[in-house]
Amino acid sequence: MEGTPKQPSNLSLLLQSLLDEAQQLPDAGKVADYIPALAAVAPDQIGLAVATIDGQVHSAGDADTAFSIQSVSKIFGLVQAMNRKGDSLWQRVHMEPSGQPFNSIVQLEWEHGIPRNPFINAGALVVADMLVSHYSASKAAALTFIRRLALTEQIWVDNAVYHSEKEHGNRNAALAYLMKSFGNIEAEVPDVLDHYFYQCSVEMSCKQLALSLLFLANRGIHPVNEQSICSRRDAHRVNAILSTSGMYDQSGEFAFTVGLPAKSGVGGGIAAIVPNYGVIAAWSPKLNNFGNSCRGMHMITQLAGQLGLSVY
Amino acid sequence: MEGTPKQPSNLSLLLQSLLDEAQQLPDAGKVADYIPALAAVAPDQIGLAVATIDGQVHSAGDADTAFSIQSVSKIFGLVQAMNRKGDSLWQRVHMEPSGQPFNSIVQLEWEHGIPRNPFINAGALVVADMLVSHYSASKAAALTFIRRLALTEQIWVDNAVYHSEKEHGNRNAALAYLMKSFGNIEAEVPDVLDHYFYQCSVEMSCKQLALSLLFLANRGIHPVNEQSICSRRDAHRVNAILSTSGMYDQSGEFAFTVGLPAKSGVGGGIAAIVPNYGVIAAWSPKLNNFGNSCRGMHMITQLAGQLGLSVY
Amino acid sequence: MEGTPKQPSNLSLLLQSLLDEAQQLPDAGKVADYIPALAAVAPDQIGLAVATIDGQVHSAGDADTAFSIQSVSKIFGLVQAMNRKGDSLWQRVHMEPSGQPFNSIVQLEWEHGIPRNPFINAGALVVADMLVSHYSASKAAALTFIRRLALTEQIWVDNAVYHSEKEHGNRNAALAYLMKSFGNIEAEVPDVLDHYFYQCSVEMSCKQLALSLLFLANRGIHPVNEQSICSRRDAHRVNAILSTSGMYDQSGEFAFTVGLPAKSGVGGGIAAIVPNYGVIAAWSPKLNNFGNSCRGMHMITQLAGQLGLSVY
Amino acid sequence: MEGTPKQPSNLSLLLQSLLDEAQQLPDAGKVADYIPALAAVAPDQIGLAVATIDGQVHSAGDADTAFSIQSVSKIFGLVQAMNRKGDSLWQRVHMEPSGQPFNSIVQLEWEHGIPRNPFINAGALVVADMLVSHYSASKAAALTFIRRLALTEQIWVDNAVYHSEKEHGNRNAALAYLMKSFGNIEAEVPDVLDHYFYQCSVEMSCKQLALSLLFLANRGIHPVNEQSICSRRDAHRVNAILSTSGMYDQSGEFAFTVGLPAKSGVGGGIAAIVPNYGVIAAWSPKLNNFGNSCRGMHMITQLAGQLGLSVY
Repeated sequence: MEGTPKQPSNLSLLLQSLLDEAQQLPDAGKVADYIPALAAVAPDQIGLAVATIDGQVHSAGDADTAFSIQSVSKIFGLVQAMNRKGDSLWQRVHMEPSGQPFNSIVQLEWEHGIPRNPFINAGALVVADMLVSHYSASKAAALTFIRRLALTEQIWVDNAVYHSEKEHGNRNAALAYLMKSFGNIEAEVPDVLDHYFYQCSVEMSCKQLALSLLFLANRGIHPVNEQSICSRRDAHRVNAILSTSGMYDQSGEFAFTVGLPAKSGVGGGIAAIVPNYGVIAAWSPKLNNFGNSCRGMHMITQLAGQLGLSVY
Repeated sequence: MEGTPKQPSNLSLLLQSLLDEAQQLPDAGKVADYIPALAAVAPDQIGLAVATIDGQVHSAGDADTAFSIQSVSKIFGLVQAMNRKGDSLWQRVHMEPSGQPFNSIVQLEWEHGIPRNPFINAGALVVADMLVSHYSASKAAALTFIRRLALTEQIWVDNAVYHSEKEHGNRNAALAYLMKSFGNIEAEVPDVLDHYFYQCSVEMSCKQLALSLLFLANRGIHPVNEQSICSRRDAHRVNAILSTSGMYDQSGEFAFTVGLPAKSGVGGGIAAIVPNYGVIAAWSPKLNNFGNSCRGMHMITQLAGQLGLSVY
Repeated sequence: MEGTPKQPSNLSLLLQSLLDEAQQLPDAGKVADYIPALAAVAPDQIGLAVATIDGQVHSAGDADTAFSIQSVSKIFGLVQAMNRKGDSLWQRVHMEPSGQPFNSIVQLEWEHGIPRNPFINAGALVVADMLVSHYSASKAAALTFIRRLALTEQIWVDNAVYHSEKEHGNRNAALAYLMKSFGNIEAEVPDVLDHYFYQCSVEMSCKQLALSLLFLANRGIHPVNEQSICSRRDAHRVNAILSTSGMYDQSGEFAFTVGLPAKSGVGGGIAAIVPNYGVIAAWSPKLNNFGNSCRGMHMITQLAGQLGLSVY
Repeated sequence: MEGTPKQPSNLSLLLQSLLDEAQQLPDAGKVADYIPALAAVAPDQIGLAVATIDGQVHSAGDADTAFSIQSVSKIFGLVQAMNRKGDSLWQRVHMEPSGQPFNSIVQLEWEHGIPRNPFINAGALVVADMLVSHYSASKAAALTFIRRLALTEQIWVDNAVYHSEKEHGNRNAALAYLMKSFGNIEAEVPDVLDHYFYQCSVEMSCKQLALSLLFLANRGIHPVNEQSICSRRDAHRVNAILSTSGMYDQSGEFAFTVGLPAKSGVGGGIAAIVPNYGVIAAWSPKLNNFGNSCRGMHMITQLAGQLGLSVY
């Protein structure tokens, strides 16, 4: 980031104007439909929030509406596991970009069951396995951790999505069994999948999501309550992997055009970390071909450009 | 980068101590031996230089010794081509990480002759094709551009390396012909290879390399002479691709542990960009399994850690 | 086959001499050890049998000892499914060679869950799915079919192997779940795996195996009891796929050196079909790097060469 | 082959009726258009010939019209090289099916420059390299060999095709340079390509083609003049590789439906070997998606079915 970003006289006004602009875009993308529960979401909802490390939250649109965070939850799981496992975690999952168009089983076979990074499905399943093996009640622990970060108890799992995921999880089951055949899953595969789908089914609003990730913009410390969430080094590391691998096979393009660590989910949410400044959370359900929210991408790209937020 | 990095009372002393430390490392890695001319280099040479955007250069060890910059030259070629071709460049080469263990021909076939990014060999060959097609004397233009950036006429091509590369360039020829079969090489393949090998064979010292890339740390403007080398947006973009793809298949790990845009070459050189601060150039010929300089990696990792230079 | 093969005055003597020769070979290969129950087999056992379409059976060595037929069972499953499904079977599994060094998950992903042929694991799992979906008691039906072909009730499943397979079946589970994600498995995956492992755990002797496959050498008709097992066209088809894909990634070499349709299993058994003549069954537990019995390969190669049995 | 095939009272009549039937087929497929010289051929030509090992030739349609034999020439090159190099040939090219949808560069990289078999382009280039390295005038030697087999001097190279191939040969150049980078091409790549394209550009009629391959149906001996062309073992071997790999990625299906060793070319020709009986040669320029002649496939399938020619 180039020194202090320009603070607009009224950040909320800027957010509203970018949201209005995004709504004017030609209707593009389509809502994730691989599970019925996700396909049922109202497609035109749109929200935007920015939490800054001074604890303020600005927002526009449907920023208080809870949505399915899906793969954004991989950040929470990773931080939990890094805290529990330390550096030994990286013997079971690498930190290199995947370079595969899809969350692919191919690379997993080539590389003997060690996933390329914790933000592809295979990597997140290994992380889930660590949590299932560590905690007696890993799902409750995951929800508690997210609530602690978002500073609220009002975060829940969408049970319809959770059960729908389990019914349509054959590909993730294939990934998990393949890794188990290489010895890289310790717990029983159904338990690992259960934790993974539970975590993906957490619902949060843009405001909650932005607040919950502030520690990554603030060297591991939650700026609101000064709690240490992870080490400074680990905050850098998570941001680094987000930068190379957080936006599916559009990660390079996102670094190129936006220049921020970020993670998206097929529920239409995107969270972008601005080191030493804050967190941007955007949401709109329609996805582009890479699985990233069309309008969410647009709003974050414009905001980062106008405020000069690129880390490069 | 977290605000202003700590400026040590004497940066040169720090560089010297890190270089001394690197020399004490157990003897590891081996000099690139795929061409005889590179294999002949004295293996224990080591240099380190930091150029800051105020125009100062600090250094230690063999920082005035010219070495073969090899793939570091891909940065110069890319900036030249971006200036000439504008955004149309990105229709012929993507900006996504490769995710392949080697500079692979596999992905090129899957993706119909469009290389994943300009820092893998295939991508650099497309860039070379653009320069060969644009300039009547592309090799001279390349050398002139590098000299202009390094603020000296005293930069040359090592003819032994140049001819040695040409004799051992069958794999690059395979990449180029495959791309030509997909219509993504315009000029004659031998001419493209000639330009590519010429550019790889440029010799520079750590000091020259650090100076020559300062514009990337300074929004596109060379801070010494205030010349505009590229747009601010393009400087961000080059740094972004360096961050995801500059260090071969160790790019993710480098982002994870160091957190800086960087490019390495099999001559043992590494250049790391610190936005708004300066450029670090390290050189030592022995390479690890990924093709990155062992001691160069060590010195840059330590320096970035001690000065808090990570962009994340 | 070149007209009528030379009938040795005493085929049994020839079999014995080839078996003796195989026993003299330098100790090579190793017993399959991916499941404990298979690893426990006495490694030096060796048997050889030839059943001819006039109903005679000649043999040497341990030709009455039952061994785990493993992948040889894929022939039986395929014929059962061809009889039940007709040509619609080939919409769910292809008949092309795999060309992959291992029973790979890669190709399955590329080709959208349609296995290359019924003799790789993925293809045999699709076949098992057809049988599970068709029969109320598919395992019993499979065993009944094999007993009918071998003209004896004295064929059983090795329960230790069966349960051991199920405990070590993660890779097959990965294949099945991946195909299910593509819609190419109809039944529940655990049921499909159960049938598959049951079928693999059938034990037969060389003599039984040779007799049971005579119908493939005789245009679909069991020559002993004149029962029609499959159509003449389907017998040709099974032999064709065996010729291109029956010997794992050594299928091409086997066609090249022996020239007979054949199937091997990791229990050390090999069955080779000689159209219009008979069936050769060989068994010895130590496997080469491709998973084919070392001594079994040797005996069949010599026998086919000396009797001039190549179909080419 | 099941004993002696039924000899129709008049084989010529059968050929004519099959050809008439093929001409009635709905217009399908398209003429190869990757080089202009091939695209210019009249698309509705069609010929069929059968040469039997008693030296007779029956035919129908345009069986005397010379067409570009293209990949069918790989058989001639392979036999030449087998005669010159002996078993050492098989250290530089394998005999396994490729299993790749296209003549792919992928597998070549995985397998370190050793092509899967001599009938994919990469393998034929290695064979061409052997001939170029062995003969002082390899192109003349190739043509002489083909004329000797076809028992006529009236066989020529189509120079328009030859030069057109050279101009559009970038993909083959990529394959050759990649193999050279692995040390599996000895001569200069342009010389190897020149020989390869020359051989592909030979023109033959169906009658000439059928006669020229009779030695493969007759244990290596040309039945017309009793000359020994290759060993009996090598004739079996060539037929074996044809069976698993001669019809591109439709080889398995061709074995399945026809059951004969065969080779096709993008000029629309197909030659099928019937061991101990003769050779079928069919030609019609329109190709299916696999690169095999639509009407040629139809005529051979019908003929083999009606005469019971399958080797299985």
